[in-house]
Amino acid sequence: MGGDRRWLSLSASVQAAGLEEDVRAWRSANERRVVGELADLLSIPNVADDVAAIERNADRLDGMLAARGFKVKRLSAGPGTPPSLFGELRTPGAKRTIVFYAHFDGQPVDQPGWISAPFTPELRAGPLGGKQSKIDWTAGTGPLDPEARLYARSASDDKGPIVAMLAALDALKASGRKPSVNLTVFLEGEEEQGSPNLAKILRAHKDLLKADVWIFADGPVHQSRRMQLVYGVRGVTGLELTVYGPRRPLHSGHYGNWAPNPAVSAARLVADLRDEEGRILVPSFYDDVRPLTAAEKAALAALPDVESALAQELALGRTEGGERLMDSVMRPALNVRGVSAGGVGEAAANAVPTRAQVSIDFRLVPGQTPEGVRRRIEAHLKAQGWFVTDQEPDAAVLAAHPRVVKAEWSAGYAATRTALDLPAARAVSKVVSAAVGEPVLEVPMLGGSLPVSIFTDTLGAPAIIVPMVNHDNNQHGVNENLRLQNLWDGIEVYAALFGTLDW
Amino acid sequence: MGGDRRWLSLSASVQAAGLEEDVRAWRSANERRVVGELADLLSIPNVADDVAAIERNADRLDGMLAARGFKVKRLSAGPGTPPSLFGELRTPGAKRTIVFYAHFDGQPVDQPGWISAPFTPELRAGPLGGKQSKIDWTAGTGPLDPEARLYARSASDDKGPIVAMLAALDALKASGRKPSVNLTVFLEGEEEQGSPNLAKILRAHKDLLKADVWIFADGPVHQSRRMQLVYGVRGVTGLELTVYGPRRPLHSGHYGNWAPNPAVSAARLVADLRDEEGRILVPSFYDDVRPLTAAEKAALAALPDVESALAQELALGRTEGGERLMDSVMRPALNVRGVSAGGVGEAAANAVPTRAQVSIDFRLVPGQTPEGVRRRIEAHLKAQGWFVTDQEPDAAVLAAHPRVVKAEWSAGYAATRTALDLPAARAVSKVVSAAVGEPVLEVPMLGGSLPVSIFTDTLGAPAIIVPMVNHDNNQHGVNENLRLQNLWDGIEVYAALFGTLDW
Repeated sequence: MGGDRRWLSLSASVQAAGLEEDVRAWRSANERRVVGELADLLSIPNVADDVAAIERNADRLDGMLAARGFKVKRLSAGPGTPPSLFGELRTPGAKRTIVFYAHFDGQPVDQPGWISAPFTPELRAGPLGGKQSKIDWTAGTGPLDPEARLYARSASDDKGPIVAMLAALDALKASGRKPSVNLTVFLEGEEEQGSPNLAKILRAHKDLLKADVWIFADGPVHQSRRMQLVYGVRGVTGLELTVYGPRRPLHSGHYGNWAPNPAVSAARLVADLRDEEGRILVPSFYDDVRPLTAAEKAALAALPDVESALAQELALGRTEGGERLMDSVMRPALNVRGVSAGGVGEAAANAVPTRAQVSIDFRLVPGQTPEGVRRRIEAHLKAQGWFVTDQEPDAAVLAAHPRVVKAEWSAGYAATRTALDLPAARAVSKVVSAAVGEPVLEVPMLGGSLPVSIFTDTLGAPAIIVPMVNHDNNQHGVNENLRLQNLWDGIEVYAALFGTLDW
Repeated sequence: MGGDRRWLSLSASVQAAGLEEDVRAWRSANERRVVGELADLLSIPNVADDVAAIERNADRLDGMLAARGFKVKRLSAGPGTPPSLFGELRTPGAKRTIVFYAHFDGQPVDQPGWISAPFTPELRAGPLGGKQSKIDWTAGTGPLDPEARLYARSASDDKGPIVAMLAALDALKASGRKPSVNLTVFLEGEEEQGSPNLAKILRAHKDLLKADVWIFADGPVHQSRRMQLVYGVRGVTGLELTVYGPRRPLHSGHYGNWAPNPAVSAARLVADLRDEEGRILVPSFYDDVRPLTAAEKAALAALPDVESALAQELALGRTEGGERLMDSVMRPALNVRGVSAGGVGEAAANAVPTRAQVSIDFRLVPGQTPEGVRRRIEAHLKAQGWFVTDQEPDAAVLAAHPRVVKAEWSAGYAATRTALDLPAARAVSKVVSAAVGEPVLEVPMLGGSLPVSIFTDTLGAPAIIVPMVNHDNNQHGVNENLRLQNLWDGIEVYAALFGTLDW
């Protein structure tokens, strides 16, 4: 096929011929180099609220993009805010422009239980939870076990997809092909913070980011391990609630039953917000929800069964709501991501705690807004007798109100769902289906969140998510990991998109 | 009065004459020495589950008792269990034998917020919570500020009372007086663990511990700062509950609303156990409770008002149950001392947690037993649909039951209430009232717990609590402290008891 590889003049169909084999051959020969480049990137801490760390990641990514010929710009909302990266790779004669989106910041890593340090990447053999021997990818040659997993914060979410995208370009270049589209990359540095500055950045650089379609690389493939295209995402907003007991810890024997116990009040508050089936008990909470269309319901119904295997893998004795997983995540969600009061286990002391904290993330569906959620939740708390404040209450405020709750909201964004029948959507579906050798699964909306609505609202271009990472990657938790076969699949699919997408 | 001070031949009334002034004068001259001895003792860590630390405290106390002429024995339930100390100081000719009880182990110190390290005692001026300048008691002479407080774990609970007892004996001796009673001390080394080995120790040393009355030094004086006698205590038992979510943390967007959220289940569990007024919602829970007698109700009604000042000091916008404090603590109590799941604040991650822990201490009243509480709580949990186990559940157990809770109970003991009209009780009341110059307050039962029922059940002697530490001492919490005036008062009252008690 080598003779056909000339720049510029190839039609999409001619360029597609043999591409899959060429990319796979390149990957086989470069596995250890790709893993090494990803591991180097993962070794730079990237917890989202550490701006200096995000800057160090941006520096590294800048160099990685420049090495592939991208024209790189750093976009930020101002001093002290985390930078995002813009990169541009033009193909003379290309008709369409696509933007590849991923984020390079990560969730906190404070949870106990990391087998290896979150920023010391380790490649380990065998399935998740099994007996995992460490693999040194820098020594030896020959193929790596495709079931091996690279463990580190952001291995999957999203540094893995970023490195897959770069490797896809390397593979195209090595095969003598040029991209079939103008490729822009937008690598966000504050996604795990809820993207507080994203809209401002997009508005400021609207012209730079003009495109026919945005391709998002965030999120996992289907739990069946099959590739999927996702046409929407839920929105998100976060809430930290603090309720108050006595001003100092009190002996539970001498003051219990009299001084209010904030852990009990917090339990009541949570039980009044949400039941054990995931139903949010706040009046009118579901009023804004835009219902699913018949086409979306049909797409959902066509998804393969994953529930029974998942329930067994996770040792679930029940599931919430009694629905299929994908039907569950079409609903708005209130997830209690953390609670804390006093001490438990070895740290338990027989005292009435001074405060209890409840940390919540909300998932929004189309029709809802973070502002609407805030309004309804706070109205509900007030109706339940809470004095709601966003400030740390002083003694006078505490003494003046029977029940005081501090409610601190983090920036959030709305959900989005793109129509399944857009020409761009059909073109992406066709290329990816061809690359994976079977009809790709189509999901109307992902349960997870991405600031897609900020892009679609600000820029007006449609968005499609083309995820590559394994579903059991522990993203946001301890021992986040990326299965190597998913990295290889990602390289092939992204190479097919960049090399043959056209409509 | 010096000429009257001969050994042995003095009647109680003659010995009482001038005793108060003599003890006060001795104390004035020895303030810094007493504080120094206490600080040295407090600098030895004493968290209850650290047996080696408890041994080091026992070594120090052994020497302090021997220096006062006590014949000391170490009593323990066997190797690896914490020792308690027995000390005997006989007065030839004394008619009565009393036992002085205190414990020298302490609560955990893991809570954040200690101003100085818990085992680095600091004397600080001014009221609690105010601008506190550090005082060096080793430098200078003259009286220390009686409002100054010594900060350290166990300053009040109970190392302060132990040092007050020894200083009382020093003061008696310096004044040329002998004790009017045979004095036994029993210093427990495992009270903050729930006294798991105490009954065994008492049974094994029944003869050694024979006495007419036990005087307990644990617990605080009345919130009005007036001295009180306490004729009973609530019992206690502890419970650590763990409820389970998925086997690994899951992205809340992709799996929330489907994988059960253990923090929500824990909130529901707590809300079903107890309401915000302190009422325990478990069926039949109150059936075993022995009601208060008319005399006990009258004694309670005679206690001075403390509630309004306390509510202000603690910035309480409400109190539980709407009762007076002492009426509240006559009821059984369920205190949620801690809850923990996932992460809050900076540590919050958008994940479904794998488990939630709830730590509870129960306060028992006469008629209840730890076994009875356990039986009723577990029956309630089962009736609520929980599979209850005392073992860490494996995947098979979790998958087989919709709701699994691990319930780990700590050893506990029952409550006790001693009759107010016993001759020993009247004699103690008379001596203490004389020492403090006003009728001492009489409390039928303390809200806090002491293993008094184990003593009364095993040994058959009545028990009276004669507390000395300030009510606002933060015992069991951070910044535990002892107000110096309370230390001085304790020395005087204990000296009066040891020097003049007789009936």
